[in-house]
Amino acid sequence: MLSVAILAAGKGTRMVSNLPKVLHKLSGETLLKRIINTSKKLNPDKIFVVIGHKPFLIKDSLSDVKDISFILQEPQLGTGHAIQVLSKELIDYKGDLLILNGDVPLIRTESLKELIKVRESNNADVSLVTTKKESPFGYGRVFKKDNLIEKIIEEKDCTVTEKLNNTVNAGIYCFDWSKLSEVLSNLETNNNQKEIYLTDTISLLEKSISYDLKEEEEIQGINNRIDLARCEQILQRRIKKKHMKNGVTFVNPESTTVSEESIIGIDVIIEANSHIRGFSEISDNCIIGPNSYIENSSIKKNSKVVNSTIFNSEIMDNVCIGPYSHIRPGCSICPDSKVGNYVEIKNSHIGKSVKVNHLSYIGDSNIGKNTNIGAGTITANFNGTKKNQTFIGDNCSIGSNTVLIAPINVGHSVTIGAGSVINKNVENNALAISRVKQLNIKNWKKIN
Amino acid sequence: MLSVAILAAGKGTRMVSNLPKVLHKLSGETLLKRIINTSKKLNPDKIFVVIGHKPFLIKDSLSDVKDISFILQEPQLGTGHAIQVLSKELIDYKGDLLILNGDVPLIRTESLKELIKVRESNNADVSLVTTKKESPFGYGRVFKKDNLIEKIIEEKDCTVTEKLNNTVNAGIYCFDWSKLSEVLSNLETNNNQKEIYLTDTISLLEKSISYDLKEEEEIQGINNRIDLARCEQILQRRIKKKHMKNGVTFVNPESTTVSEESIIGIDVIIEANSHIRGFSEISDNCIIGPNSYIENSSIKKNSKVVNSTIFNSEIMDNVCIGPYSHIRPGCSICPDSKVGNYVEIKNSHIGKSVKVNHLSYIGDSNIGKNTNIGAGTITANFNGTKKNQTFIGDNCSIGSNTVLIAPINVGHSVTIGAGSVINKNVENNALAISRVKQLNIKNWKKIN
Amino acid sequence: MLSVAILAAGKGTRMVSNLPKVLHKLSGETLLKRIINTSKKLNPDKIFVVIGHKPFLIKDSLSDVKDISFILQEPQLGTGHAIQVLSKELIDYKGDLLILNGDVPLIRTESLKELIKVRESNNADVSLVTTKKESPFGYGRVFKKDNLIEKIIEEKDCTVTEKLNNTVNAGIYCFDWSKLSEVLSNLETNNNQKEIYLTDTISLLEKSISYDLKEEEEIQGINNRIDLARCEQILQRRIKKKHMKNGVTFVNPESTTVSEESIIGIDVIIEANSHIRGFSEISDNCIIGPNSYIENSSIKKNSKVVNSTIFNSEIMDNVCIGPYSHIRPGCSICPDSKVGNYVEIKNSHIGKSVKVNHLSYIGDSNIGKNTNIGAGTITANFNGTKKNQTFIGDNCSIGSNTVLIAPINVGHSVTIGAGSVINKNVENNALAISRVKQLNIKNWKKIN
Repeated sequence: MLSVAILAAGKGTRMVSNLPKVLHKLSGETLLKRIINTSKKLNPDKIFVVIGHKPFLIKDSLSDVKDISFILQEPQLGTGHAIQVLSKELIDYKGDLLILNGDVPLIRTESLKELIKVRESNNADVSLVTTKKESPFGYGRVFKKDNLIEKIIEEKDCTVTEKLNNTVNAGIYCFDWSKLSEVLSNLETNNNQKEIYLTDTISLLEKSISYDLKEEEEIQGINNRIDLARCEQILQRRIKKKHMKNGVTFVNPESTTVSEESIIGIDVIIEANSHIRGFSEISDNCIIGPNSYIENSSIKKNSKVVNSTIFNSEIMDNVCIGPYSHIRPGCSICPDSKVGNYVEIKNSHIGKSVKVNHLSYIGDSNIGKNTNIGAGTITANFNGTKKNQTFIGDNCSIGSNTVLIAPINVGHSVTIGAGSVINKNVENNALAISRVKQLNIKNWKKIN
Repeated sequence: MLSVAILAAGKGTRMVSNLPKVLHKLSGETLLKRIINTSKKLNPDKIFVVIGHKPFLIKDSLSDVKDISFILQEPQLGTGHAIQVLSKELIDYKGDLLILNGDVPLIRTESLKELIKVRESNNADVSLVTTKKESPFGYGRVFKKDNLIEKIIEEKDCTVTEKLNNTVNAGIYCFDWSKLSEVLSNLETNNNQKEIYLTDTISLLEKSISYDLKEEEEIQGINNRIDLARCEQILQRRIKKKHMKNGVTFVNPESTTVSEESIIGIDVIIEANSHIRGFSEISDNCIIGPNSYIENSSIKKNSKVVNSTIFNSEIMDNVCIGPYSHIRPGCSICPDSKVGNYVEIKNSHIGKSVKVNHLSYIGDSNIGKNTNIGAGTITANFNGTKKNQTFIGDNCSIGSNTVLIAPINVGHSVTIGAGSVINKNVENNALAISRVKQLNIKNWKKIN
Repeated sequence: MLSVAILAAGKGTRMVSNLPKVLHKLSGETLLKRIINTSKKLNPDKIFVVIGHKPFLIKDSLSDVKDISFILQEPQLGTGHAIQVLSKELIDYKGDLLILNGDVPLIRTESLKELIKVRESNNADVSLVTTKKESPFGYGRVFKKDNLIEKIIEEKDCTVTEKLNNTVNAGIYCFDWSKLSEVLSNLETNNNQKEIYLTDTISLLEKSISYDLKEEEEIQGINNRIDLARCEQILQRRIKKKHMKNGVTFVNPESTTVSEESIIGIDVIIEANSHIRGFSEISDNCIIGPNSYIENSSIKKNSKVVNSTIFNSEIMDNVCIGPYSHIRPGCSICPDSKVGNYVEIKNSHIGKSVKVNHLSYIGDSNIGKNTNIGAGTITANFNGTKKNQTFIGDNCSIGSNTVLIAPINVGHSVTIGAGSVINKNVENNALAISRVKQLNIKNWKKIN
């Protein structure tokens, strides 16, 4: 049996924020949700989230997460107190209690499995994650004899000599719950902070052992936004390293961000300062960037997205987009199409081999295959009250600076004259035009 | 009494530049102005700037700075010579002379206060800033006995063994002027460079002590543009660290630059590759970037500036801008307004809850509240001779691809038909339109 | 006599790519072409490229390179086997054989010259490049006695103790061919990989000496895309350091990329996230960026390219471009002109002091001096079949939202009314206009 307790009651004063610390985000996901996701991969019987500061905000942020129980710690008197509050939920529970910190977001599931295994194989009362940190400032220090832990002292309560010890406590424990529950009520607040520390259980238990992590990055904690930026960097390096090993070229990896969920095919080239966010999928041989921002979108094979922004859309094979174009949510752009520069497309279907090359706004539209949209074409989809649809057939040629006033239906193989305002439907093969004859007036101006 | 001398006479040959070295900039401010600003915080009685190379350029660059005296060093025969030239301004002066280098721009006022205090509390003839540098190349080396300084040898004059000493001279001194003035005329040019070195005073004075700086970054000197880039990085890290501690999230801090003068509120998120320059103020909860450039502008609470450029403007609360928009100087954009993509606004007032969503140029205009500006709207503000004003009232609906020929006055609740050219004023509640009826010509083209 | 053999037969499995490893690019040039270019500077008598995996792709990539001979190694049984295959081309050859690795792209010509000199001056059978690597993982280890090499053991065949040796083999050799050819047939496949190793010649030859490189970066090999990114970073740092020494300011060098071929003048300022690619030349005093991308273009003195994209074009003195403009191939923009925002120009000549400030598409055009192109002007250069030319004379004023339907000829000092569609030529000094009178309809809408 395995239960997980995630400590998320604190305010995080040094974040200087109106948000509780655990609701700050790394690569698009809150710290708390990250640690819950990591926990779930252990298939625990129960996950408890101990909350305290702004509890409703925290609950709201997890409204889509199932199978977690909230424990309200009010007031917040320290980590030991958090587990004391939790203990009423664990009466008669037999098994492990894994305790995780909401502000240590990078711990890996594999490391947690090791921690649990270490406790069990050593028949210890508790195992806890330790690591040697080059700069241990801010962490509790762990004092060991052989493999066994003697005591842990919080940074704030350390003497100058004790501070020199750079073996630190990551705040991640696996307790044998029956042993922990025996000593839990003995914890006291005899420290500078007047808090009840979970770490004090170590001296009360008979056998505490450490699971030493080689890579200190995994237990990087977050106390302020400098730590947050560091964790973001660690996480981003992990993600990009994975993709590089899988056949993705990054021209300047440090300038680029990629969400954990994104999938990237082989021989994709990610140019400088590109950002692939949310659930995105980039297929083989694409070129992305420089300066492209892609969110929740899929880009199929051999496509190119240069210096452009794409949200919640599907770009098919062999499409070229950019520079300076903006594909807003709800678009699908079929193979072999080209979207040039200063083109905004929203909630539209663009057929195969279509060209929308310059300075256009295409909204709520459906454009047939092989159609050419001239520069400066605008679909006037908003009549002041509601958004309306524009339909344009196959093989059309829409002249430059055309306004199409929706709702409107333009047939196949239609030609529209440049500068027209089109507010009546156009049948197949027709020419539609609204234009005044050009007037030339001589000698309007003398040559300078 | 405190006088400050700033050495700024050199050319800086290794900068390979037409500008004197001290006129190169860090985060938007010249090296020289930076060191003057640092000096001023000491409230000195006098600030002397010793100039030589291109003196008029240097004076011009400081035309807005008060209470400094220029000393012309001509020819430039070294740092000792510079102070010899200065000495005629200090006849009968009693007090400290703080000597700063124009090309050591990152020294902090606090460190200078310490330097002065160290001289005084030790009753020394001079105190000077030293630090241990990992890579001391290019700096004069300091040879100490206990706390006292024996001699300083310039890099160029060091033996190979002497070069191994990594305690360096930052070129920043606090002299007891009466002691310095006694030995100043004894300085000679017995070195490889045929220059008169100020450092030679050390062996002539009885008591020289060092003020050792822990952080070597503070005395990073600038000899070439590699050093300039390093100083920029050091400075930028300082600035962003300050903001992170104050509650600002930077997604990729290394890709972002922020001017020293800028103010940023809490829970602001600065996305990758964003640049906040000049005197800018970003209020709480804004999201800036990626790829935004903001100069001399204020962005009020809860606003969002995505991939856009803003100069010398005021953006009120809850405004969304971008991507790819350009707010030029002289704009104010009222709360709840939205500026979409490919929108240029110049010298204009945009009322509350206005929408300018696509492909528009709004110049020299005043737009009332709740007005919707259609895609492709252009204010033709230039008649070939002068710029003219456009006024648009509240609750208007301006059709797509409209040209408004200024000067022009459009009343409240006006509707303008798409594709119109408007050159006459429009009264309240009217519809204005200039349009030719659409003509459809059948069978213009056969279906392919 | 000097012959060069470049080993380029491998697949590079860990690249996870459809391209052979040596066809991956660094700063725009394939690894293989880089090493060929480096070789050519030695003026060798012969350059052999040993190919095997996807040989036709490799040959195609070098179709423009003269004076190289391809040697097909089929199957690929190791580096020794490669030279065995090559040996039939070198019957009766007397002289040096320099062997280079296609996946070690950063070696400098100067180092290769030293390597050759070291062999000759020591009268050795072979000289080879070694270096101490902090992290030697993946490299063959070199075991030396005094200056002579005893043996080299491939990483895969090293014992744990042997792996601790961090002197590595860069895979770069200079052999006395007559000595090598004597032992070449003795090489065997007695190793874990069942490959014939060139390194085994060392124990067969009498005198092997090392040329030790101080800078380990030079022999950074490429096994996967993490290595590729690291090499890109090393190369980029080299390039930018060179420019900084020559008088170029980089605001954030790590965010910027510059091709090796590009030339940059003094007092140029390169802002953050700018990319100068291909054969580009930026003259003195230009300001480039932030976020500019310039490829195969020249920018003359005192020009400014802000947040814009330029391909294969010539920008003259004192031109301002941007932000968000796009100069496509084939443009020349004369001095003192201004291209503002959201302007696309393609294959056009823009005369002196022209303004194209907003939201325009200028394609296949020739625009005379002092002409002003109004916002939203579009040259409709494509009639559905072919591209046509637009000519506009000097001193013209083209009204906003004008469409010019090519082919068309607009004379000098012409004025075109805003919103016109121009499809007939316009003579000098004329006004051309196509416009419907504005109609105002009162009380269309009640004030809300």
